Amino acid sequence: MRRTAARPPDRATTWLLLLVAAGAACTADATAAGKATPPATAAPGSSPLPSWNPGGARTAILAFVARVTDPRNPDFVPEPRRIAVFDNDGTLWVEQPLYFEGMFTIDRARAMAAADPKLRSRSAFQKILQDDGKALGHLSEPEIGALLAATHAGMSHEDLVSTVQGWLAGARHPRFDRPLTACVYRPQLELLALLRANGFKTFLVSGGGVDFMRAFSEQTYGIPPEQVVGSAGKTRFAAHEGKGDLVKLDQLQTIDDKVGKPININLHIGRRPILAFGNSDGDLEMLEYTAGGDGPHLLMLLHHDDAEREYAYDRASRIGKLDRALDEAAEHGWLVVSMRKDFKVVFP
Amino acid sequence: MRRTAARPPDRATTWLLLLVAAGAACTADATAAGKATPPATAAPGSSPLPSWNPGGARTAILAFVARVTDPRNPDFVPEPRRIAVFDNDGTLWVEQPLYFEGMFTIDRARAMAAADPKLRSRSAFQKILQDDGKALGHLSEPEIGALLAATHAGMSHEDLVSTVQGWLAGARHPRFDRPLTACVYRPQLELLALLRANGFKTFLVSGGGVDFMRAFSEQTYGIPPEQVVGSAGKTRFAAHEGKGDLVKLDQLQTIDDKVGKPININLHIGRRPILAFGNSDGDLEMLEYTAGGDGPHLLMLLHHDDAEREYAYDRASRIGKLDRALDEAAEHGWLVVSMRKDFKVVFP
Repeated sequence: MRRTAARPPDRATTWLLLLVAAGAACTADATAAGKATPPATAAPGSSPLPSWNPGGARTAILAFVARVTDPRNPDFVPEPRRIAVFDNDGTLWVEQPLYFEGMFTIDRARAMAAADPKLRSRSAFQKILQDDGKALGHLSEPEIGALLAATHAGMSHEDLVSTVQGWLAGARHPRFDRPLTACVYRPQLELLALLRANGFKTFLVSGGGVDFMRAFSEQTYGIPPEQVVGSAGKTRFAAHEGKGDLVKLDQLQTIDDKVGKPININLHIGRRPILAFGNSDGDLEMLEYTAGGDGPHLLMLLHHDDAEREYAYDRASRIGKLDRALDEAAEHGWLVVSMRKDFKVVFP
Repeated sequence: MRRTAARPPDRATTWLLLLVAAGAACTADATAAGKATPPATAAPGSSPLPSWNPGGARTAILAFVARVTDPRNPDFVPEPRRIAVFDNDGTLWVEQPLYFEGMFTIDRARAMAAADPKLRSRSAFQKILQDDGKALGHLSEPEIGALLAATHAGMSHEDLVSTVQGWLAGARHPRFDRPLTACVYRPQLELLALLRANGFKTFLVSGGGVDFMRAFSEQTYGIPPEQVVGSAGKTRFAAHEGKGDLVKLDQLQTIDDKVGKPININLHIGRRPILAFGNSDGDLEMLEYTAGGDGPHLLMLLHHDDAEREYAYDRASRIGKLDRALDEAAEHGWLVVSMRKDFKVVFP
């Protein structure tokens, strides 16, 4: 066995650190008044996957779907077993220059500090308020934890979801100047729709916060909350006169990254996927777990090699680092999707 | 606030103890050769809920379903929000004289000890092998933990599922002399089918082991694995040459009972249910959480008051104790379903 891991990644706050890894570039404008325009959620036209270029990845995807849905094919997979798992950041929507949830955390921390002078004396909020990329880059782990606790906890799941939705309605991408929910990849929306039209059940399996993703997954991807698996904090239950509520705590329950992905897939879904799509080393174990199934499977990595239309990054990137998984893909024949070559159109 | 709880129940092995609380009565015959006949999974006939007696609970259920599915009704609930959660043991199938998973644990421990002489020197296995109800009743917590670890861990999820399926194919109920999967309540199968026909998504939310339930939930209830929430052990991921697998460990990950139910509903489903059906104090928090939602909701408890056709037990029972929840139901107007009065037929 190459490696084993009985627990989530050693440092409980690894993913939190990543959130602000490129903090200097965070320029989301939470005060923008424009409403997010809902992106297309289904493939237009009659040809499947119209935003994918002919040949290459598109051909491989269509061939796989044809094989597993044809009852006469030896690779036929009954509909209930057609489980497809997708990473979110960098696989379904943009993750540069900073995870969108990192932008949310910073914007919300600023708004909270503006409303509550007491917060301004705390070091993490001081650095956030300096509006200085360098200061953000020097946030310590405890400071990042404090920011996440303050911005994600102390409220109900429902309150956090509506807070995120309110923020998403105003937040725009610093480079593409469009709502963040319109920074999704049109070819991927078409792929999700194609899979569902062919009896697949599509799941988000991402390192992002589960509440954060549930705030937009249904409207943006057509993926309902119960098909979203993510990192999560603990919650506390309390009841009064026959009515109960949950409050989010500032302690981590699960980190849905690396080995956390297959572990949570098993816990939440209980079936091994037959299709997995990621874009970074954090997705490697999810692809390996999918590859370990008995039947046919399709393993895909989105390679960000399109600096002109989106971004170009892989082995050296602090966000969405794609290094070991790229080697494994070459070694085991997994499908590496080139954004530059395979995506005819990038955004809706 | 009446009470709060940030963590699962204090004693991590509470539910394990319950498994053998009535160990003396465990007489499942794992060697019986008869194959389980699949029970009916949908309501026959054209009248809804034909196995429910007219009036009472049936009327209340049909009225609720009519209200939330009628777009002109102020209580209309859009389809994606029609989440229904059901406890399993004692709500959908029989839980007396012992949880069926307890029978599995004991039968499997015996089979393992028969195959591996080394196991026979361990105290828990010694007591199991004595085939003596009194000895089973004196199993200590560590011994029960050891039995569950030995019978549920050290293998993949897939292997445990097929082990359980093999056992279920032979196990019969000691009193009703029918396969355990035919010890489901026909009125409840009809209710599940009625709800799904009306756009509800049905979930199992039970203290039982998640792998154990996933071994039969789809065939027996029409509830796919990804809609099963249960108690779970930790797993370890390991990969070799691009293929990964999970092995079940003998450590608990989550106990899906009491406050664990709303916590796991939030984590797995991410939406508050509008219908919850349980039968014991372990379901109280799930009902309270459902009651805490803004919109319409239906809260139900199955009261086992039918010694002739099934069992009669409530406040004093060690299995499926229904005490505080019965008081709360009276206080808050929850629907108490009487097996004796409301079930026209009990079994398929």
